[in-house]
Amino acid sequence: MAAKEVSACLIVIGNEILSGRTKDANLAFLAVNLNEIGVRLREARVIPDIEDTIVDTVNECRAKFDYVITTGGIGPTHDDITADAMAKAFGVKIGIHKEAYDRLLRHYGDPALFTPARQRMARIPDTASLVDNPVSVAPGFQIGNVFVLAGVPMIVEAMFHSFKHRLVGGTPVLSRTVRTSLPEGTIAEPLAALQSRYSDLEIGSYPAFRQGKISTGLVLRGTDAIRLDQGARELVGILAGMGGEPDLLEA
Amino acid sequence: MAAKEVSACLIVIGNEILSGRTKDANLAFLAVNLNEIGVRLREARVIPDIEDTIVDTVNECRAKFDYVITTGGIGPTHDDITADAMAKAFGVKIGIHKEAYDRLLRHYGDPALFTPARQRMARIPDTASLVDNPVSVAPGFQIGNVFVLAGVPMIVEAMFHSFKHRLVGGTPVLSRTVRTSLPEGTIAEPLAALQSRYSDLEIGSYPAFRQGKISTGLVLRGTDAIRLDQGARELVGILAGMGGEPDLLEA
Repeated sequence: MAAKEVSACLIVIGNEILSGRTKDANLAFLAVNLNEIGVRLREARVIPDIEDTIVDTVNECRAKFDYVITTGGIGPTHDDITADAMAKAFGVKIGIHKEAYDRLLRHYGDPALFTPARQRMARIPDTASLVDNPVSVAPGFQIGNVFVLAGVPMIVEAMFHSFKHRLVGGTPVLSRTVRTSLPEGTIAEPLAALQSRYSDLEIGSYPAFRQGKISTGLVLRGTDAIRLDQGARELVGILAGMGGEPDLLEA
Repeated sequence: MAAKEVSACLIVIGNEILSGRTKDANLAFLAVNLNEIGVRLREARVIPDIEDTIVDTVNECRAKFDYVITTGGIGPTHDDITADAMAKAFGVKIGIHKEAYDRLLRHYGDPALFTPARQRMARIPDTASLVDNPVSVAPGFQIGNVFVLAGVPMIVEAMFHSFKHRLVGGTPVLSRTVRTSLPEGTIAEPLAALQSRYSDLEIGSYPAFRQGKISTGLVLRGTDAIRLDQGARELVGILAGMGGEPDLLEA
């Protein structure tokens, strides 16, 4: 079976991430959950709330990757400009989406609470389809191969599960991790030799400092479980022979 | 005094971030510390350990921003390809840098420990200058307006402090934060009106869910402290009048 890669790019829209005030918590969730359905996160960009930047970045990325996911900027305040930017990127109009409007009206109940600002959250670009928001109702949307989500992690997670069936994935990437007490510099040469014997796998080496001790995490990635297990066992053998106390994990 | 913006872009190089295995911890540190010296982080990209991607991304970003900082991929293992990619991006040769080599040799002491893999860490592109690594010796480097750092946060922080005097900053962005118990949808309209009266400030609105309660963080950013204080006090007045229990923070 030939592995087919389906790629995705995440665009994090938000001054609050770029200022260092808020730490992004969506990249890791999306990376892991996309991979489970055979979609590989190949790039992520963090960009400011500037319309031209959003338009240019979306247009570049939607041409380059199979799927694009954006987070942030779809709330009720003046700095929520993502929906308008998407309409501009796709060259379509934007207006009140009846289904989105009805959902929000039902949610707020009292029309007095359904302020003009909240009504803005029903503005969806033409040709887009809604992405359900089981947490706080205000929907995201899909336009072309771009999925536009909220920024709050709890909502991102719920939205992801509500649209993931629309994604057509390829072959998921599997991994094995081998931890060793040896530092990178000691194992680099046998590791490079292993990598050249297993060119179908991607072997990454990550130094770690825990409780004042250096160790190394070696991650083997690939789409063929048999090859992965073979490579991982071989690596464990090499490290054991060097006194590296290897520890194999199934992920 | 006219505010002058000096921009930076961060390029995070690493499959381990894109796979969701490791969470980036450098963006927030760099954003805050760059801003203190008047350099504004305007974009961040997370890219895989693929040479062509690194080359293209660096060349795009170094033309677009005043400074570029990269993290990751300068260790001793086969997957550490950043230095070679930088040489390719700048069209220069790469070879053993004598000063880097001497530092590493002194550090490892015993020439037997200074393995060929570790000697790779002394390979620096021609025309680059070293960036000191007070933690683990193996240096980063500066080439043109690009600063190439390690990926481990402790080393990134130490390297940043060792090269930050080389950056020529503009006007730092200051901020004030006002927290309110009111949800975004309730305050969106007066907030938009305030933003239009203070077009020299950038007002961001960030919903938060804490202990099951919704609240909103409003962040005013700008380069003029007097205008910021004025805008923040006005916002506090508006929110107090709406029963929003505003709380003003000096950052």
